[in-house]
Amino acid sequence: MAEVSQSVTDLINELAKLPGIGKKSAERLAYHLLRTPKTEALALAEAIRRVKENVRYCSVCYNLAEEELCSICRDPRRDQELLCVVEQPRDLLALEQAGVYRGLYHVLLGRIAPLEGITPEQLTIDALVQRVRSGKFREVIMATNPTIEGDGTALHISSLLGDLPVRITRLARGITSGSVLEFANKEILADALTGRQALNY
Amino acid sequence: MAEVSQSVTDLINELAKLPGIGKKSAERLAYHLLRTPKTEALALAEAIRRVKENVRYCSVCYNLAEEELCSICRDPRRDQELLCVVEQPRDLLALEQAGVYRGLYHVLLGRIAPLEGITPEQLTIDALVQRVRSGKFREVIMATNPTIEGDGTALHISSLLGDLPVRITRLARGITSGSVLEFANKEILADALTGRQALNY
Repeated sequence: MAEVSQSVTDLINELAKLPGIGKKSAERLAYHLLRTPKTEALALAEAIRRVKENVRYCSVCYNLAEEELCSICRDPRRDQELLCVVEQPRDLLALEQAGVYRGLYHVLLGRIAPLEGITPEQLTIDALVQRVRSGKFREVIMATNPTIEGDGTALHISSLLGDLPVRITRLARGITSGSVLEFANKEILADALTGRQALNY
Repeated sequence: MAEVSQSVTDLINELAKLPGIGKKSAERLAYHLLRTPKTEALALAEAIRRVKENVRYCSVCYNLAEEELCSICRDPRRDQELLCVVEQPRDLLALEQAGVYRGLYHVLLGRIAPLEGITPEQLTIDALVQRVRSGKFREVIMATNPTIEGDGTALHISSLLGDLPVRITRLARGITSGSVLEFANKEILADALTGRQALNY
């Protein structure tokens, strides 16, 4: 077999390392980049480089930041007494996009997952406990994912914070807006009934 | 909503321009690149840059090349009298991987597609005709895709080459190895019957 251009082979190999991108997709993307105008392809390369050079974790909340502190920690208009604990920066982003939360965040950078060898020490739990201990938070909202591991992580953290004078809450669970009751499983319906709320006019 | 890091937003936007990658996938890939070790992420950026700077079209056959001529055109061991016409460099690669062809290639860089406004002039058909006219090819194999447009392109080219003393062939059509006859459609079966070959012991 004739060798393809080494540069093309390298690009295919690098693209194939991305999650969810197999060998065939990587080839397709590489040939797309070959056809793309040079400036556009280089814009992608440059965006990758800039992210790796500019983006780090906020030294307070571990959100993504381009400076020492992230834009949320720097914002004095945010409610400084409210702290929302999430697993990943993406979760933070999702909550921000919902547009109803105005407090601060703490990003754990993962969840406790013994089966994958992820222990509490590998997360930012120590920093969180210290932050809550020395801070003036009136409420810590556990917004880990509604999975066994997310729930376990929330439970572990709330036990660590148990002796502090702070209210610990978790996200409401129940049926999702726009869904059909008929297709909700029994855990969802149990959550929805247990957490039922008064209907106010 | 708090603004995310501008670098991250830029990267998501650039990734979302790739074919088959939507906004959500782009976010997922961007956050993956954020977690990736810096050297690995930069290797991807560098691979993109190198492809755009190093790779061009072979001046003879329009295959991908890092020099004036591609590795196939430079190879004196290839059969210089056999020419295989394909639509794209990827098709060439697929044929090379099959490992049975030892001749030269000509890449059209597309196919005639009037509905998309792609006319013969936008392809490398002129260069092909000139190449065949001045060359010493004994056979030109039309290996365009077995689609209406691929077939039409092959037909157009063979009419242009009709007056030259060269044999024009096309890829065999029929049932695919490993397939089940029952699921072949009638076009496939018609091709398979029309092109039936003697069974030699």
